[in-house]
Amino acid sequence: MTTRTEHDLLGDKDVPADAYWGVHTARARENFPITGVPIAVYPHLVVALAAVKAAAARANAELGLLPPQIAKAIDEACAEIRAGALRDQFVVDVIQGGAGTSTNMNANEVIANRALELLGHAKGDYAHLHPNEHVNLSQSTNDAYPTAVNIATITAVRELAEAMTGLQQAFADKADEFSGVLKMGRTQLQDAVPMTLGQEFGTYAVMLGEDRLRLEEAVTLLHEVNLGATAIGTGLNTAPGYAAAACRHLVEVTGLPLQTSPDLVEATQDCGAFVHLSGVLKRIAVKLSKICNDLRLLSSGPRAGFNEINLPPVQAGSSIMPGKINPVVPEVVNQVAFEVIGNDVTVTMAAEAGQLQLNAFEPIILHSLGASITHLTAACHVLADRCVSGITANPVVTRGYVENSIGLATALNPAIGYAAATEIAMEALATGRGVAELVLERKLIPAERLEEMLRPENLAHPRG
Amino acid sequence: MTTRTEHDLLGDKDVPADAYWGVHTARARENFPITGVPIAVYPHLVVALAAVKAAAARANAELGLLPPQIAKAIDEACAEIRAGALRDQFVVDVIQGGAGTSTNMNANEVIANRALELLGHAKGDYAHLHPNEHVNLSQSTNDAYPTAVNIATITAVRELAEAMTGLQQAFADKADEFSGVLKMGRTQLQDAVPMTLGQEFGTYAVMLGEDRLRLEEAVTLLHEVNLGATAIGTGLNTAPGYAAAACRHLVEVTGLPLQTSPDLVEATQDCGAFVHLSGVLKRIAVKLSKICNDLRLLSSGPRAGFNEINLPPVQAGSSIMPGKINPVVPEVVNQVAFEVIGNDVTVTMAAEAGQLQLNAFEPIILHSLGASITHLTAACHVLADRCVSGITANPVVTRGYVENSIGLATALNPAIGYAAATEIAMEALATGRGVAELVLERKLIPAERLEEMLRPENLAHPRG
Amino acid sequence: MTTRTEHDLLGDKDVPADAYWGVHTARARENFPITGVPIAVYPHLVVALAAVKAAAARANAELGLLPPQIAKAIDEACAEIRAGALRDQFVVDVIQGGAGTSTNMNANEVIANRALELLGHAKGDYAHLHPNEHVNLSQSTNDAYPTAVNIATITAVRELAEAMTGLQQAFADKADEFSGVLKMGRTQLQDAVPMTLGQEFGTYAVMLGEDRLRLEEAVTLLHEVNLGATAIGTGLNTAPGYAAAACRHLVEVTGLPLQTSPDLVEATQDCGAFVHLSGVLKRIAVKLSKICNDLRLLSSGPRAGFNEINLPPVQAGSSIMPGKINPVVPEVVNQVAFEVIGNDVTVTMAAEAGQLQLNAFEPIILHSLGASITHLTAACHVLADRCVSGITANPVVTRGYVENSIGLATALNPAIGYAAATEIAMEALATGRGVAELVLERKLIPAERLEEMLRPENLAHPRG
Amino acid sequence: MTTRTEHDLLGDKDVPADAYWGVHTARARENFPITGVPIAVYPHLVVALAAVKAAAARANAELGLLPPQIAKAIDEACAEIRAGALRDQFVVDVIQGGAGTSTNMNANEVIANRALELLGHAKGDYAHLHPNEHVNLSQSTNDAYPTAVNIATITAVRELAEAMTGLQQAFADKADEFSGVLKMGRTQLQDAVPMTLGQEFGTYAVMLGEDRLRLEEAVTLLHEVNLGATAIGTGLNTAPGYAAAACRHLVEVTGLPLQTSPDLVEATQDCGAFVHLSGVLKRIAVKLSKICNDLRLLSSGPRAGFNEINLPPVQAGSSIMPGKINPVVPEVVNQVAFEVIGNDVTVTMAAEAGQLQLNAFEPIILHSLGASITHLTAACHVLADRCVSGITANPVVTRGYVENSIGLATALNPAIGYAAATEIAMEALATGRGVAELVLERKLIPAERLEEMLRPENLAHPRG
Repeated sequence: MTTRTEHDLLGDKDVPADAYWGVHTARARENFPITGVPIAVYPHLVVALAAVKAAAARANAELGLLPPQIAKAIDEACAEIRAGALRDQFVVDVIQGGAGTSTNMNANEVIANRALELLGHAKGDYAHLHPNEHVNLSQSTNDAYPTAVNIATITAVRELAEAMTGLQQAFADKADEFSGVLKMGRTQLQDAVPMTLGQEFGTYAVMLGEDRLRLEEAVTLLHEVNLGATAIGTGLNTAPGYAAAACRHLVEVTGLPLQTSPDLVEATQDCGAFVHLSGVLKRIAVKLSKICNDLRLLSSGPRAGFNEINLPPVQAGSSIMPGKINPVVPEVVNQVAFEVIGNDVTVTMAAEAGQLQLNAFEPIILHSLGASITHLTAACHVLADRCVSGITANPVVTRGYVENSIGLATALNPAIGYAAATEIAMEALATGRGVAELVLERKLIPAERLEEMLRPENLAHPRG
Repeated sequence: MTTRTEHDLLGDKDVPADAYWGVHTARARENFPITGVPIAVYPHLVVALAAVKAAAARANAELGLLPPQIAKAIDEACAEIRAGALRDQFVVDVIQGGAGTSTNMNANEVIANRALELLGHAKGDYAHLHPNEHVNLSQSTNDAYPTAVNIATITAVRELAEAMTGLQQAFADKADEFSGVLKMGRTQLQDAVPMTLGQEFGTYAVMLGEDRLRLEEAVTLLHEVNLGATAIGTGLNTAPGYAAAACRHLVEVTGLPLQTSPDLVEATQDCGAFVHLSGVLKRIAVKLSKICNDLRLLSSGPRAGFNEINLPPVQAGSSIMPGKINPVVPEVVNQVAFEVIGNDVTVTMAAEAGQLQLNAFEPIILHSLGASITHLTAACHVLADRCVSGITANPVVTRGYVENSIGLATALNPAIGYAAATEIAMEALATGRGVAELVLERKLIPAERLEEMLRPENLAHPRG
Repeated sequence: MTTRTEHDLLGDKDVPADAYWGVHTARARENFPITGVPIAVYPHLVVALAAVKAAAARANAELGLLPPQIAKAIDEACAEIRAGALRDQFVVDVIQGGAGTSTNMNANEVIANRALELLGHAKGDYAHLHPNEHVNLSQSTNDAYPTAVNIATITAVRELAEAMTGLQQAFADKADEFSGVLKMGRTQLQDAVPMTLGQEFGTYAVMLGEDRLRLEEAVTLLHEVNLGATAIGTGLNTAPGYAAAACRHLVEVTGLPLQTSPDLVEATQDCGAFVHLSGVLKRIAVKLSKICNDLRLLSSGPRAGFNEINLPPVQAGSSIMPGKINPVVPEVVNQVAFEVIGNDVTVTMAAEAGQLQLNAFEPIILHSLGASITHLTAACHVLADRCVSGITANPVVTRGYVENSIGLATALNPAIGYAAATEIAMEALATGRGVAELVLERKLIPAERLEEMLRPENLAHPRG
Repeated sequence: MTTRTEHDLLGDKDVPADAYWGVHTARARENFPITGVPIAVYPHLVVALAAVKAAAARANAELGLLPPQIAKAIDEACAEIRAGALRDQFVVDVIQGGAGTSTNMNANEVIANRALELLGHAKGDYAHLHPNEHVNLSQSTNDAYPTAVNIATITAVRELAEAMTGLQQAFADKADEFSGVLKMGRTQLQDAVPMTLGQEFGTYAVMLGEDRLRLEEAVTLLHEVNLGATAIGTGLNTAPGYAAAACRHLVEVTGLPLQTSPDLVEATQDCGAFVHLSGVLKRIAVKLSKICNDLRLLSSGPRAGFNEINLPPVQAGSSIMPGKINPVVPEVVNQVAFEVIGNDVTVTMAAEAGQLQLNAFEPIILHSLGASITHLTAACHVLADRCVSGITANPVVTRGYVENSIGLATALNPAIGYAAATEIAMEALATGRGVAELVLERKLIPAERLEEMLRPENLAHPRG
């Protein structure tokens, strides 16, 4: 392998001649051989880093701190990266020490070397354009990196919100389709009172809609960025006007309504917005898991279970039991939910561990949030497309449950009182006989009135 | 013990003659001997249950479902309970099966028996006024209980918000007091760049302010109640107009801007608002814990630690080490934070375990949230009153750190470049000499300009 | 209120004249008004503290450090406390800062004042017998408190192990009772292959037995104590031979096979044994929750659910639905499990937060473990006594599921191959016809051989 | 792309002609596009699956269920895979529904197709050798997969145990090296009493040793496997003697002392051993995190911190602050610890969610455990090699803290009593004077005796 030699405070080090990354990245690779997964796995982050660097270069040029041709080369390199180039040069591990310094330096080095090429220089010829002194000018890892993480997260969350909208629509469509399917509602897994399958699926659509609103609230908090804070929020080594200019350019580059945080010292050490977002992702996970638990329960059987709905078969269910079809799509969604809930604990601990002017543990926060968001997004798509949209109902089964139910006794409460209704219910249970039959036998309610009262359709709709 | 005999579907059962609670409560006590802590420990819940029952009675009377004198007796009994009476009659365990049924029945029985007394009847003489048929009329546990839980939580959260405001103010006052105290900022526990102790404390005030805003957002969601939903949200056994009337009366009784949920089937099974609130409480806990970690670190010493601030001594620190004073108040706040973070996992699991039309596990959600809110409230008060308000600074120590610091080299970056600044820093470190001294020796910057650049006061304030 | 005045390094302070606790306890009550729950709620801890103080007094007397009559008075006071006296004098909050110092001082003061009385002196007359200089002699909070916590935990765990044994037996009894009840096994909630209800319940007994073994392993670790370590494990201020003597006396007092930790510096800061125990409690919680989920599922219905077993009714299930019986006992156990799992996160965070030579957060560890152990103990008792022992089976229902099952096709695999069996299964599913019927129609297997193969009794037992 | 057509119960499907995987794998890839990470990322799992399939083939041949040449071809294919071949054919996602069916089928298909090749047949020509009917013979996913997961986990844990041993040794070496370095011990971050830096590092070695013992206990549980259980533990479709034969061959293939579980029905649904192992991994994470917190604290500074030790510099610490070196290696270990603690919650939830005869969520358990084990292994290596082994002490600094310390007053306790010692300590604190100086001035102890008592070397060693 051909190499070139670079230098840092620890001395000389060889890097592959064709690598766009340099000595800082090389050392980070040696220091953090943890997961084997490079930050390139989060394309939104790479794009966001390039956006930050481009905005900083423009602001620096505007303030006369960077020669125009250098700024231009940096800007062009960033544009290429944002368009998808050089993705494989973002090689530091997703779990890394150092508060994101290695990720930031990886970006600085890749951008510097690509910009050098654009200017006709060799990679590593940093006398002309330097990763720290030019690409990182007026920045610290402690503002550039969190700003990029915010932007990347905003982008990823948008995709999740879209996926949730699709899933919400899939449930809403089924709610319409099943609006005439009568069934027993159940509380505590015991037969309760009648409702429709449409109401059941409509509930899932409402839940997802509410969760999406919370997600949008949470992501709003991420639009405040600390670019211009440098090391600890005091803006040391920035020129007057830099923070404002950098934010203005960043808005232009990203198209996002970003703002500079009102208190940069606070913003530089605070992880509140990430903890909050993680909490909302956990909320979404809880709901998705609950919904999938229900889908698995309602489709249990086919003969020794509830058997109220059929999930579309998407693969053979067993290597040994012929014809067995399993609810594999809800199951995979459950598992994503468990992962997201675990990730929330990781984010919580990492946030709590921040000390004084900085949280050194943002890389694991980014990694955990990134996994949670992208896996939830995938889970919503799969659940909508490969499960919910193909669900069918077994209306004969569900109506049978209603007609056979003890729960009908509840409807007699207003007419005969809780005590008498309880007696009827207990007798029905003991004898296997029907509730209506017993009421008539005892002449507690005239036949026609009873029939009207017990028409399940009358029982299923709220009187709000 | 004198007893009276009551009856339910399981048969007869004796209860103490002077108990306001009855057979359902008696069975629940036998079934749930878990913690020994009765629901009376949450006075907000008892008050809220009485509010719900009063509102229901008024709505039932308005709709002609309840004779006026019965409604009036129930209303009066509820008023007494809301004023603090009969607290010791709320005896079922805080951890209980049954989705809150036992708590709801405990309330129904106590109110019925007190109302019976008010009407001149004996306790247990349910022919005149019945716990289920009158006090619980038009309700199910599944709407009455969650509605009461929402109201109780709103009230408790208000107290927390006030305590947070007090703590925020205590930090803001110290931020003013310490605005002239120069110190080294630290990132990753390593000396970074200068700032003021006022900025450090101001950050804590800002954090608490942001968290309080999130808390207020979260509690807004609890203002939607499902009263009128009955068993599963279909409003079975309620008269037309009941839900609206009951909510109207509940607004009047509580003074809170409550609203009926737009989708009662969804509202009856959903725990999203509790999960959300728990997530926000966890966020607050994370911040409080981080702040307390910092306070303990900054006050470490007195001679082998940072020794930048002094926490007020509130008790002897050791049974063996004379004169030792420990940071016991931040330590207790840390522990409350750990409890709240654990409680969030409990709430999450309980919410995820909900099945179909109901979550049977609301009692543990209520219990966990109740503990989190009240303990956080106490923690904020103690931290403000017995710690933060008495903190003093050691400005000689903190300025000494700044003047002795390698971190000053950072300020030379713009003038001499990252590479040269690094060399100076490394030499200072290796030799124990000062940064300024070395810069002058090498004639990198003229003396006057250097002095101006290195004036710490110039370094501590953001340029936003 | 009559008072007496005591003194500590912060100055004078009045305490109630009749209180056995003194100035240190008084300050702690002011500093930690967090939960309102005093340490007296954990009687095992109070007893263990008295055991530690008695053992220390005996060792000190033996080494000539304490006059015999003082040691005797301390010993007698401890004996009274261990027998149940003065419980209400242990008043500091269960959540407290200071690594247990306040609990230790509360014990020192109560014992000193009771010993003073026994010697004929007034409470508070510490010139004759001093909480620190005599009761706490040769000790620090940092060894006396963790040693007491270990002993208290060992005692509490023994009660849990007994409760688990009882529950295991209850399941084993049902396994015998149900050994002839054929039923469909289910995987992923889909009908799988036949088994017996006895096998299902036997599994629960096996699980509990395995968990109990893990519990016993975990509690073994707690038998290493650090008494004699004093402040940080170096044994500062102890006489030669003290640690060994104190441990010997502690073994005598408690009857437990305790040992001095081989490395006292390590033992004084380490919380590994608590984290480990908490992990095992979590494991038990996971299993109990899984078992209760199953019990609720198997008893779902009665008409729109699995309806395979009946849980004994222990209370009316609903305030609105007559005759409804809910699985309230399994539900309360589920909730205890969720609490224990949350507590494990609290313990984990508290353990991780230990710094350098001590973990300051042992009080919340004790509190969380204490709650987990006592609630699990109660849950096991309730589940055994009020649920499992009264469970009955519905053998007609369960056999019906087997005979009606598609899963029987699995048994044909060896005879006709996976592909043909799949076809039969799919046709049975599509047409509603029986598996056996189709096989005979297609002449795939002779009738007698088929009958033998499909005898469910032949299918339910492993061939190990 | 050239394709071949395969068939399952859902119909025909094309797969790439050169793929060793088939129709079941193809469907799984479509159903689970969650993480993009294939199971090939866990080589131990792939090797273990091949071991299970080889053992099953040998047992089937031995029992006359499989023609010898078929068994031989399967065995050879498995041997190749165990040696590292065909790794890239294990393509299903690490997060998948279906209790591992897709992973099992992926293995069945790859092995079948490779065996077909070895027999001279084309891939997909399943009439000669079928993934289900031959490779999966006498197995279900529900025994083959968990058995493989156990074996894979045992192998991975061995690597972790080795890495822990290395780290333990690194700490033990430093304990020796630093045995003469006197320093102040600290409790609650406040100066306590003297000790040596060697004791401090020795503690870390002891902790790791204890944790490793727990790890070895936990992994013992995994040596019980359920091979032979088939679908639910009843061994349906296995020949008499199969389970024993399969286990015997598996022991031979793997070299591990595996045993068949005594209760296969229990073993098939139980995840206790995984929950237990995860709890132990969490315990290890807690300790590693605590140790890294200490290392970061002890190396804080260099001038405004404790500055007791120096971590070896492994990369530049800041993109803006020249010369800043950060504790990046401990920081990355902290982050791994947070991840492991979060993963434990994921494992816990997945285990709790198991229903009836199977836990469908083993894939996420495997994934979470796999990540925890491999990341902890990497973290131990990095911490030992790139941090601990290069740590140096600053003995002048640490001795200065001791000599300057108030904590020395503790040593006077036995001689002058707690009250007098407290007064001295308070005066030293107030005046900035030394403890010894004040004692002599007040003539509380003769000079020579004091000197002897205060010789720090006398204070640092336990008297056990």
